[in-house]
Amino acid sequence: MTQSRYFTIGEYPEGLPERSLFQLETCELPELEEGEVRIRNHWLSVDPYMRGRMSGVKTYVEPFELNKPMEGGALGEIIESRHQQLKKGDRVVHMGGWRDVAQLDGDQVQPLPDIDVPPQAFLGVLGMPGMTAWSGLELVAELKSSDTVLISAASGAVGSLAAQLAHQKGCKVIGSAGSQEKREWLEAHGITAIDHHQSADEIKKALKKAAPQGVDVYYENVGGPMLEAALDVMNDFGRIAVCGMISRYNESTPSAGPANIAAVLIKRLRMQGFIVHEWVQGHEQAFYEQVGPLVANGSIEYRETVEEGLERTPDAFFALFEGSNQGKMLVKLD
Amino acid sequence: MTQSRYFTIGEYPEGLPERSLFQLETCELPELEEGEVRIRNHWLSVDPYMRGRMSGVKTYVEPFELNKPMEGGALGEIIESRHQQLKKGDRVVHMGGWRDVAQLDGDQVQPLPDIDVPPQAFLGVLGMPGMTAWSGLELVAELKSSDTVLISAASGAVGSLAAQLAHQKGCKVIGSAGSQEKREWLEAHGITAIDHHQSADEIKKALKKAAPQGVDVYYENVGGPMLEAALDVMNDFGRIAVCGMISRYNESTPSAGPANIAAVLIKRLRMQGFIVHEWVQGHEQAFYEQVGPLVANGSIEYRETVEEGLERTPDAFFALFEGSNQGKMLVKLD
Repeated sequence: MTQSRYFTIGEYPEGLPERSLFQLETCELPELEEGEVRIRNHWLSVDPYMRGRMSGVKTYVEPFELNKPMEGGALGEIIESRHQQLKKGDRVVHMGGWRDVAQLDGDQVQPLPDIDVPPQAFLGVLGMPGMTAWSGLELVAELKSSDTVLISAASGAVGSLAAQLAHQKGCKVIGSAGSQEKREWLEAHGITAIDHHQSADEIKKALKKAAPQGVDVYYENVGGPMLEAALDVMNDFGRIAVCGMISRYNESTPSAGPANIAAVLIKRLRMQGFIVHEWVQGHEQAFYEQVGPLVANGSIEYRETVEEGLERTPDAFFALFEGSNQGKMLVKLD
Repeated sequence: MTQSRYFTIGEYPEGLPERSLFQLETCELPELEEGEVRIRNHWLSVDPYMRGRMSGVKTYVEPFELNKPMEGGALGEIIESRHQQLKKGDRVVHMGGWRDVAQLDGDQVQPLPDIDVPPQAFLGVLGMPGMTAWSGLELVAELKSSDTVLISAASGAVGSLAAQLAHQKGCKVIGSAGSQEKREWLEAHGITAIDHHQSADEIKKALKKAAPQGVDVYYENVGGPMLEAALDVMNDFGRIAVCGMISRYNESTPSAGPANIAAVLIKRLRMQGFIVHEWVQGHEQAFYEQVGPLVANGSIEYRETVEEGLERTPDAFFALFEGSNQGKMLVKLD
């Protein structure tokens, strides 16, 4: 018999969860059924959207089931297969994360594309976060090389790729980040950096200096004062691709929205919320063809912050809200 | 010599303007230059967007010039012409409102389309407000007959047409209005009416009752608590066509924005500010063909609230913000 160790939550928390919310459990896996595969995970992904799945409310994904294995992006190696197209030794990405051994319907796992990069890149720059960055810019905001682009949380998993993709396209790019070290990384990559841990007025001032010509595309990951400041500097006909609002995910009482929301009217802005799979479908090949070579040849730099060991998965998750990660937050398993 | 009487403003007010802001002036008009026409106005239009032109800040239109004739939609008869295509007696619509006699470049005036309706309809249901309603629904929100549609200020010049157009298309339509009499008019036209002069929570409750299936398209004219309530009942992939936010136009300090702005992300909404001429251009013929017959044969009912005499133009303007108009607000000149 093979054991699986996995995390569960026993309730839906308000505000920032306690560490004790996450319980590590063990179970014996049943025999594989026809079509199933068993996967030993090597890398787990933690992502801000997972907070939404802990809210108990259906947002754009179902809540985590209480006292059941949590889910999330993961990368591993098949150790047993009863699926026609998948065999032992195949490396796959799938949603059976927050655990060391996953047992899934083989139709729900994806073999790695043939691109010469470290495998965990398929959880980051060439995985869901990468597709989110690319589709938000290219498909949602319809980015042009003449655009001035503002990206919040621009050193995060999604933001750091969005910032570099826009920069490579020839755009003037401003990125926000919450620490000096992150801003230095942005500046070293040709991106004008500002601090988003300020009041809306201070952010506005910084934006007016960084982008005196105004902003055409705002790639939104943060919300709160950052959104208000961005609305103030948007140019007419600007596009706002709303990918995330991490500043709001742990609020038990929602804070006020942007007082300058009328800018949407005055400047004829288009503000569009999106989630990746609804946009990228049918465009995966274009994504791999455009972004894959840039990653493989080093034109796009990606960073990872790695926690070691399954036990530390909740700590990796908390790091996202403390902002202590650089780039993609990952958990490495033995 | 011909005299023109016209309104001016001498400063850009904060908050709701005082009646004394508006000064009625008189001037002698100069001789017509080549290409110019002189028009005796019969009808003047006042519209909420004019408040923006009194702010001194460039929004999507230039501010009114201080101590110069104000501008606005108007309908009149040419009394003298030095323009090739225009002759004495022609009836035209143009932007030389807030005055009794206008002298303009003939290229800036438009002869009335050949549709059998009272002429002032070309300032309302078949003019700018009508085109705004139609293009917001058809072009911006991409309305489908299966949509549930919410329209705020649904008994105003724009809203009352939007509500009827959506209803005729087969949509389930909810309209908001600030008085009992307006809501009765809506109900009599097959539109479920709610009151938008309530708190966001009360509006939400009314909306949940009126549209238990949720709202797919929100045609926004009001802003404030109404927008917050609408965000709460929008369905996934809903579209919000932002045409106006009249509740905010006289604010000297902007009030807080919607606390539930994250709904844009969670529900993947598209929120799009628009102004009519940027969308309707090239579609005018489609508009007249679709809407003209409906107005001419009475399938679409339009209402007017009329002030008499040039002197009363500011009063007509104030009525927009008091909400005391029914449908299109007009001034009739002798």
